[in-house]
Amino acid sequence: MSTLLIPRSSASVADRLARSAAAAEGVHIATADVTGWLDHHRRSCGTEIRRIPFAELDAWSFAPETGDLRHRSGKFFTVEGLHVVRPEAEWQQPIIVQPEIGILGILAKEFDGVLHFLMQAKMEPGNPNLVQLSPTVQATRSNYTKAHGGAEVRYLEHFLDPDRRRVLTDVLQSEHGAWFYRKRNRNMIVEAHGDVPVAEDFRWLTLGQIASLLRLDNVVNMDARTVLASAPMAPPEPGALSSDADLLAWFTGERSRQDVHVRRVPLRGISGWRRDEHSVHRLDERFFRVVAVSVEGAGREVAGWTQPIIEPVGTGVVGFAYREFGGVPHVLVHARVEGGFLDTVELAPTVQYVPENYAHLPAGHRPPFLDLFLNAAPDRVRYSAVHSEEGGRFLDAESRYLVVETDEATTPTRAPAGYQWVTPGQLNVLTGHSRYVNVQARSLLAAINTGAVGRAPLPR
Amino acid sequence: MSTLLIPRSSASVADRLARSAAAAEGVHIATADVTGWLDHHRRSCGTEIRRIPFAELDAWSFAPETGDLRHRSGKFFTVEGLHVVRPEAEWQQPIIVQPEIGILGILAKEFDGVLHFLMQAKMEPGNPNLVQLSPTVQATRSNYTKAHGGAEVRYLEHFLDPDRRRVLTDVLQSEHGAWFYRKRNRNMIVEAHGDVPVAEDFRWLTLGQIASLLRLDNVVNMDARTVLASAPMAPPEPGALSSDADLLAWFTGERSRQDVHVRRVPLRGISGWRRDEHSVHRLDERFFRVVAVSVEGAGREVAGWTQPIIEPVGTGVVGFAYREFGGVPHVLVHARVEGGFLDTVELAPTVQYVPENYAHLPAGHRPPFLDLFLNAAPDRVRYSAVHSEEGGRFLDAESRYLVVETDEATTPTRAPAGYQWVTPGQLNVLTGHSRYVNVQARSLLAAINTGAVGRAPLPR
Repeated sequence: MSTLLIPRSSASVADRLARSAAAAEGVHIATADVTGWLDHHRRSCGTEIRRIPFAELDAWSFAPETGDLRHRSGKFFTVEGLHVVRPEAEWQQPIIVQPEIGILGILAKEFDGVLHFLMQAKMEPGNPNLVQLSPTVQATRSNYTKAHGGAEVRYLEHFLDPDRRRVLTDVLQSEHGAWFYRKRNRNMIVEAHGDVPVAEDFRWLTLGQIASLLRLDNVVNMDARTVLASAPMAPPEPGALSSDADLLAWFTGERSRQDVHVRRVPLRGISGWRRDEHSVHRLDERFFRVVAVSVEGAGREVAGWTQPIIEPVGTGVVGFAYREFGGVPHVLVHARVEGGFLDTVELAPTVQYVPENYAHLPAGHRPPFLDLFLNAAPDRVRYSAVHSEEGGRFLDAESRYLVVETDEATTPTRAPAGYQWVTPGQLNVLTGHSRYVNVQARSLLAAINTGAVGRAPLPR
Repeated sequence: MSTLLIPRSSASVADRLARSAAAAEGVHIATADVTGWLDHHRRSCGTEIRRIPFAELDAWSFAPETGDLRHRSGKFFTVEGLHVVRPEAEWQQPIIVQPEIGILGILAKEFDGVLHFLMQAKMEPGNPNLVQLSPTVQATRSNYTKAHGGAEVRYLEHFLDPDRRRVLTDVLQSEHGAWFYRKRNRNMIVEAHGDVPVAEDFRWLTLGQIASLLRLDNVVNMDARTVLASAPMAPPEPGALSSDADLLAWFTGERSRQDVHVRRVPLRGISGWRRDEHSVHRLDERFFRVVAVSVEGAGREVAGWTQPIIEPVGTGVVGFAYREFGGVPHVLVHARVEGGFLDTVELAPTVQYVPENYAHLPAGHRPPFLDLFLNAAPDRVRYSAVHSEEGGRFLDAESRYLVVETDEATTPTRAPAGYQWVTPGQLNVLTGHSRYVNVQARSLLAAINTGAVGRAPLPR
């Protein structure tokens, strides 16, 4: 081969990631000490989150004409209205509009021949416990172009114009289609070149360490989870229920058969919702509210701020049904429509619901498969942890993330319409591209990739 | 392996497609007879296309409020306005809005162990020569749900709910982002099961036969070209200038760095455009016009009709710069912004311009690389044919499609910003997913896939 040419693909990155996942401990901090270190930062940041009425928002207000909630700089994000029309349903809702592409970046570096990842103890106002383990860089463009008037984004220089040979992954991924209008972020893992000074709120961790932490509630934040899901670490698999080509053809069929017409509308007067001094909420109180918070005494980029934030009404249940076929693990994905997706449908977990939104429905009309997860026998549960969604936009948005082993009676080999059995390797390949795998499925895939999901049940 | 499992990928489809590409003749019609057969249909269809003023459109009119051009049924498509804002430019233009997903489907079947493809002699009003070789099925949803009040779409049943094991490709692809608002069509190749009755305007052809026809001007229509580009027939390649992962990371960077804000606006009063009795055109007459035609005496689904249609102002030049590195062919792709793309950027040919739109500019300000194609020495031209764009929406939209061998002086190994060398195999893999490769690049890839682009120069 000419010296100009390089192989089109290489197993070496996957091998190096697998070696990191196999390393239960790293060189920098003991796994058992990470939660204490996060606690330390939680205490020392001294931040207090206070709910405030909209009238106390500083620099944010409802635009007179449209009722849209926006910052006077025109930056950050807006809360507007969305009108969604599907053949069987039509609704309006508030939606976050944030067209700029942010960077979620994790810096990687080998120590003793094992890749470690530079993770940050980061406060976000919506996190139920304020400080979680976050990517090295988590920056909207407003962040790093200083719309905040804040400090430099540390380590950003590694991600702005990286040497492509040091990029392990760089892919645009969607975020919550129920709450965001066509949001996407750049999910990056970049290998550092040379020495990297480590600030006191950063630690190098192996994937094996992160796997242990993913088994705990509310430790690894959403931004870290989605980046880890995008790591190219597909395991070798001898086969699958469907070939990769069949899977893509099925996906095309699902995307094509869905009629979803979406139109942005003014937030003022969206049907079924009401605005009062403290929130924009549905008349029936389901789904979510738009509220406002004040962030006080934060040791973050800026001293303190106020902002609008989305608050879901209850705790979600997000789960993959899991079966092995011919010894190969498979999970059951759902081709799910969310109004804010750029393109109609993405692959979601088997279930992704807040049960109380459906509690009023008779048994036969509740979301499919949900009861399998609500009533799972402990010895079928391969993974269970509470995680919260992005704390910069979502307040206490917790879900229980589950991987539950199921059987032919409840989840047949021949999946029902709209569902498909896929292997972790297939999902992993799809996260190498944009808009196949939604953020909830990516959270579960991060747990699978790193080894946080065991083949054996969780210890009782 | 369990009998439930199948391999995730298989070379057998690529091998079978390669065998068909190697078959210069098939079992049904001699290659040399195809153009005569198309001539026969051209004569026998007896269709005449007449330009008409908008006032003579039947059932189409400009909406009183918006000035949008629409059909009274609300179906087919509309011509609306688009407002595009980029950091360095801002403009308005008419755009075709057609949200429904159509099917472009080619039926395949083995004869004597070689895959043949069922191609249609089809009249489209915008084709410069009216009848071209088209996919088996070319149907908007309006077509097959009978908004035309027309006849059945023949062979459609093979594509509506196919056995996935018989699907060779099924992928949503974009169309012209300069003229269509976020249009996508389903590009399908499905292998037939059992006997297929062949209507008199259909013929089975091998890929090798289609390759010969792709060397001729205006024979193979755009819909056929894009479907053939999506065929999974990536050749084995020992390496490339960039790995597949590097290529994807570069693409993410290109998509992320482009700020494109697009808003649909009423067609009435878009800035820089004027509507008169016969056309909507730019004040400076560049780019394209919206005009109206009457289709008379057509032996098509319906007896005759009138419709609006887009007419570009000149003949385009669409070309790939071609070089071999270490013996492996590469083409130079351009990460191109088009206002109608669903997501900002797709990979386009090295050049894709109508030269006369830029004729008024001084030499240093003309599109990059264009002169390489306008002035190519005949012995560097690997492929040259005039093709037209979709004749149902575009009138005489011809471009010269070229593959031209270049060198280090004109197209360096280290490509300039916004450009990248990729192998045909890499492009082929990307056409397995949506919105990586634009329709013009797919036309050229169809020629490469089928073998219409030789490694040697074209005969003089």
